[in-house]
Amino acid sequence: MSTSTFTPTPNSSSSAFAPLQNDTFLRACLRQATEHTPVWLMRQAGRYLPEYRDTRAQAGSFMGLATNTQYATDVTLQPLDRYPLDAAILFSDILTVPDAMGLGLSFALGEGPKFAKNVRNEAAVAELAVPDMAKLRYVFDAVTSIRKALNGRVPLIGFSGSPWTLACYMVEGAGSDDYRHVKTLMYSRPDLMHRILAVNADAVALYLNTQIEAGAQAVMVFDSWGGVLADGAFQQFSLAYTARVLAQLKTHHDGVRIPSIVFTKGGGLWLPEMAGLNCDVLGLDWTMNLGTARALVGGQTGGPGKALQGNIDPNILFAPPEHIATEVRRVLDSFGAPHTDAGTPGPTHIFNLGHGISQFTPPEHVSALVETVHSHSRHMRAALNK
Amino acid sequence: MSTSTFTPTPNSSSSAFAPLQNDTFLRACLRQATEHTPVWLMRQAGRYLPEYRDTRAQAGSFMGLATNTQYATDVTLQPLDRYPLDAAILFSDILTVPDAMGLGLSFALGEGPKFAKNVRNEAAVAELAVPDMAKLRYVFDAVTSIRKALNGRVPLIGFSGSPWTLACYMVEGAGSDDYRHVKTLMYSRPDLMHRILAVNADAVALYLNTQIEAGAQAVMVFDSWGGVLADGAFQQFSLAYTARVLAQLKTHHDGVRIPSIVFTKGGGLWLPEMAGLNCDVLGLDWTMNLGTARALVGGQTGGPGKALQGNIDPNILFAPPEHIATEVRRVLDSFGAPHTDAGTPGPTHIFNLGHGISQFTPPEHVSALVETVHSHSRHMRAALNK
Repeated sequence: MSTSTFTPTPNSSSSAFAPLQNDTFLRACLRQATEHTPVWLMRQAGRYLPEYRDTRAQAGSFMGLATNTQYATDVTLQPLDRYPLDAAILFSDILTVPDAMGLGLSFALGEGPKFAKNVRNEAAVAELAVPDMAKLRYVFDAVTSIRKALNGRVPLIGFSGSPWTLACYMVEGAGSDDYRHVKTLMYSRPDLMHRILAVNADAVALYLNTQIEAGAQAVMVFDSWGGVLADGAFQQFSLAYTARVLAQLKTHHDGVRIPSIVFTKGGGLWLPEMAGLNCDVLGLDWTMNLGTARALVGGQTGGPGKALQGNIDPNILFAPPEHIATEVRRVLDSFGAPHTDAGTPGPTHIFNLGHGISQFTPPEHVSALVETVHSHSRHMRAALNK
Repeated sequence: MSTSTFTPTPNSSSSAFAPLQNDTFLRACLRQATEHTPVWLMRQAGRYLPEYRDTRAQAGSFMGLATNTQYATDVTLQPLDRYPLDAAILFSDILTVPDAMGLGLSFALGEGPKFAKNVRNEAAVAELAVPDMAKLRYVFDAVTSIRKALNGRVPLIGFSGSPWTLACYMVEGAGSDDYRHVKTLMYSRPDLMHRILAVNADAVALYLNTQIEAGAQAVMVFDSWGGVLADGAFQQFSLAYTARVLAQLKTHHDGVRIPSIVFTKGGGLWLPEMAGLNCDVLGLDWTMNLGTARALVGGQTGGPGKALQGNIDPNILFAPPEHIATEVRRVLDSFGAPHTDAGTPGPTHIFNLGHGISQFTPPEHVSALVETVHSHSRHMRAALNK
C-alpha cells in the first residue's frame, strides 16, 4: 500500500469530524439497499453557478481557486446549498499530480490546461518520479477543510485522473483532439509508455491514500481518455494501470470502509473486463444502457458485483424541466427494480451525469433533475412493496 | 425508392465503363471468399499526400477542389498510384447535401466547415426540403469522371453523411465538441428534430442513388457523430433514419449488385441492433474487437450476416513500419480465420482505419500497412489450406 512520509493535518482523523447524517451515497457504493437513489453530478461545483463565477473572479485564476483552502471549500459546498445532493466532491483538477511532478500546469483564460514541459522522450521519462506529497498539501488541506465544513451533511469524494489520462496530458502537453503524440509514443516506444504509467499509477495511489487520510470518504479515478484507445491497447495501457492504483488503495480508514469508483468515459465495450477491477463502483457514460450494464456487472442480490454510477447525457439539462424529468425517469427505469433487501448486498445505482455538467447549464434545471431522481426512485421502491 | 428528375451524364451506364479488374473489395462486401483481405483507407485522398496538397493549392479552396471534376478525379486517384489499394472513394465532403439545401457551406483556411445559416427553430426547419439534385451535379460529374479514369482498376465507393450526422452540422452551424445545440433541439423539440432527420434521410437516399446512377459501385453512409448520442436516443434519432435511407437505396444498377456500408463512429455498443440494418457491411472503429464483432453480427458460413470493415487506430501510422506491421497482423488475426468457401457467403473482413487518416501521416508508412494487409491475409489463407 502506498503511504507517504508526508502526513495531512493532524486533526484529520475521523473522530475530528461530525458524524455523517446522509450515508445514502456510501451505502449505494457498497451495494447496500437505500431509501432513494443517491445523486451527485460530475463537476457539480463549477462555472454554471453564478456564485462559483464570483469566487473564481476573486481568486483571479483557476489554480488560485484550487490552491486556496477557503475558496476550494466554499465552491465545493456551493451546489449543496442549492440542491439536495447526496455527495460532495473535492474541488480540484485531475492535473495536480503531473503539476507536482514539475511539469508546470497553467490554465490560460478561456483555454484548457497547458503544461510548460511535456514528456515525449527518453530523457523526460527518466526524470519522472512519484512527487513528494508535500507539494500537494493544498489538496489535502482542502479535503480536511471541506470535510469539516460539510459537518456531516453528506460524504466527501476525493479523486484523481487515471494513470493513462494523466499520461495523455503529460505527453501532449495540453488537451488534444487526436492524441497523436501520446499514441505515437505508445506505439513506437511502449517501454517508455509503460514507465510513465507505472510512475503515474504509484503517484495516483499515494495521492488518493493521502486524500483518504485527510478526510475523503470515497475516492474516484477518472479515466476520462481511456475510451480513445483501441481494443487491446486499452487493456494494456489503461486498465492494467488503473488496477495497479486500486491494488495499492486503502479500503478502510479509521475502521471505516472507503469505497472506490472507476469511470472510463467511452469504456462501455470493456465493461466485462472492468468487472474484474478491485473497486466498488463503475461509472458509465450515456452510451451504455444501465440495464445491460447491470446484467453484465451489477451482480445478483447476495452475490458479488459492482455498483453502477451514471449516466444521463448532461445536454438533457438544456431541455425544459418537464422533459428533464421524463429523461431522468427513463434512466432510473433503465437500471430496473431497486435492490431493497437491507440484509445483503445487491445491484445498486448512483445517479449522475455521463460526463461533467456544461458551463452553459441553467442552474434551475439542475433542481428538476435532482428532485426527480429522489421522488421517482422512492416511487420505484414503493411500487415494489405493493 | 428515391429517384431524381435530374439524370447524371448520359454516358454513365455501366456499359460505358471498362470491366473491373480487381473486384476483391466488392466480393468481400457481399461476404464472398477472396484471395486476400481487401484494404482501403478512410480519407485516403487527403492532406497527408504532397500531391494532394499541390492540387489543393491550385484549386485555391477545399470547395474549389471538390466542385471541379478534373481536380476531384485527380486527387481521388492519387493514393491508388502510390499504394495497391483495393477500392477508390469519391473525393468530396459529407456536407454537400446541406449545402445544396441552401445553408451555405464554407471552409475557412485551417478551420473546419462552417454554414452561413443554421437550423435551430421552427421557421428554419419548415424551410428544409430535399434539394434538387441538379445542385449537386458537380458530385455526380466527379463520380462519372473518376469511374472512367479508374478504367476498371478498382471499384469506386460513393458516400454521404448520415441523416443524424448532417443534422449535427446543420443545427450547430459548424463542428462542435459538445453538440449542445443539436441535443438541446433534440431533447426540447423532438418533433422538429424528427422533421429535419426525415428530410435528411430522403435527401441522402436520393443523393446516393444518383451517385449509383452516375457510376458508384458501392455506397457508404458515414454516421460520424452517432456515437455522441445516449443509448435510446441513438436508436431513435440516428439508427432509425439510417434505416430510412437504406430502405430507399438501389441494391442493383444495370443488373449489378451495389453493396452498402454503414459506419457509426463510437457505435460498437449498438452493434447487435445495427445487425438489423438492411446494409451489407458494418464499419467499426478501433474500440471494437473484430472477433467479438464477427461473433455478434458476422454470421456463419452459409448464413446471413454482415461483412465487417475496419478498424485499426490511424495513429498506429506514426509508429515505425515494423510496429505498423505487427499491429496490422494483430487486427487481421483478431478477425480470425478467413472464410474461404467460394460457394457460399460467410464472414468477411475489409481492412480499413477506424477513422480518417491523419494529415500528419508519413506517406511511406501507409505502404507498410497496405503491404502487410495483403501479405499477412494471404498467409492466413495459405495456413488454412495446410
